[in-house]
Amino acid sequence: MSKPCIICVAITGSVPTQADNPAVPVTFTEQIESTHASFEAGASIAHCHVRDDQGKPTSDAERFARLKEGIEKHCLGMVIQLSTGGRSGSGRDRGGMLPLAPDMASLSVGSNNFPTRVYENSPDLVNWLAAEMLKYDVKPEIEAFDLSHIVQATRMAADGRLKGPLYVQFVMGVKNAMPADKRIFDFYIETLNRLAPNAEWCAAGVGPAQVQVNEWSIAQGGHTRT
Amino acid sequence: MSKPCIICVAITGSVPTQADNPAVPVTFTEQIESTHASFEAGASIAHCHVRDDQGKPTSDAERFARLKEGIEKHCLGMVIQLSTGGRSGSGRDRGGMLPLAPDMASLSVGSNNFPTRVYENSPDLVNWLAAEMLKYDVKPEIEAFDLSHIVQATRMAADGRLKGPLYVQFVMGVKNAMPADKRIFDFYIETLNRLAPNAEWCAAGVGPAQVQVNEWSIAQGGHTRT
Ligand SMILES: [Zn+2]
Ligand SMILES: [Zn+2]
Ligand SMILES: [Zn+2]
Ligand SMILES: [Zn+2]
Repeated sequence: MSKPCIICVAITGSVPTQADNPAVPVTFTEQIESTHASFEAGASIAHCHVRDDQGKPTSDAERFARLKEGIEKHCLGMVIQLSTGGRSGSGRDRGGMLPLAPDMASLSVGSNNFPTRVYENSPDLVNWLAAEMLKYDVKPEIEAFDLSHIVQATRMAADGRLKGPLYVQFVMGVKNAMPADKRIFDFYIETLNRLAPNAEWCAAGVGPAQVQVNEWSIAQGGHTRT
Repeated sequence: MSKPCIICVAITGSVPTQADNPAVPVTFTEQIESTHASFEAGASIAHCHVRDDQGKPTSDAERFARLKEGIEKHCLGMVIQLSTGGRSGSGRDRGGMLPLAPDMASLSVGSNNFPTRVYENSPDLVNWLAAEMLKYDVKPEIEAFDLSHIVQATRMAADGRLKGPLYVQFVMGVKNAMPADKRIFDFYIETLNRLAPNAEWCAAGVGPAQVQVNEWSIAQGGHTRT
């Protein structure tokens, strides 16, 4: 029997607005309805971002708590993953929701360029977020925007800063970072398998790369992000 | 007949001090003597950093001018490469020496983590440094600290932000960035050859990785950095 493919749904993200696409769920009601529909359709992880009253991304812990409660109530058994990403806050504010002890949280372990700026994840911040995740027993999803991030995650698992087995997401298609390139995608899998044989991986393609990367992931036996 | 291997000597660098090692050349006289000895021994590129009166790294253009003049006078025909690296300055100060029109200058095209901080090379800064190098006809040596930096350099050459053929240096062994890993080293070469078939590459191992990476480079037909 083959291994099931986990579908993780990123219901809101940090970038799109309702002006871009009216279907983007932004209010709690919209987010919970959208998550519930995804759960019914087969998604088993909800990757969550929250927005402030102006629709801007925020790391506000109270808003994360409210969304988490709503998903727990309406989507029994769905795995909840909260974002600690740097588009919603900066410094330790990014980890302010970890005491909520969600099932999972995203974790970047290195820095890279984004379309218009540096995505900063300093070694100190990475180590602090990882320590908070150990403390609250939160399973990290490692966001790998480049090859060294995969290697760094395996080093952190080896020295105890992360609890294994690793769950690593390959993020492709971000301008000025890694494009959606099949040969590199395959090498990501090879490298992760070589350095952390028990790890699981998923992959996310950004924008136009989304469907392509979903197809590659499913074909190669990984998990996938919508 | 096989292709000659270019030896690039980094006489001073930005990290070591005379307290660490009294042989590190820091004054102009020491730097020029050291470069001359390297040139006589077969090095053909001098990768140059300058220091201030306290021995700290600086991007000061007058100091770079003085070092460049000294090397030109004493090492006739040696290729001079000035560092625009972020350990010696920040923002556009890092490119203040480019109007000196050295033969080459180092250029980082992405961001990554260093041992204790983020090595920031924002898209705007990268594009500005690249444009200055086009303006003053300076050949960049691309410093690739991660795989996406290699890809980014090939994109910049394809769209005219960099003048080809590319000369790319693989930097390995920096803590929190890419370790000296032979399989990854081979994949760097494969990726560069695939995306920019006319490119040349060299490789630098930091600290204990230096001799290992030198050996890999020479064996694989690349160029090397001491
Ligand atoms: Zn996210
Ligand atoms: Zn429901
Ligand atoms: Zn240097
Ligand atoms: Zn001389």
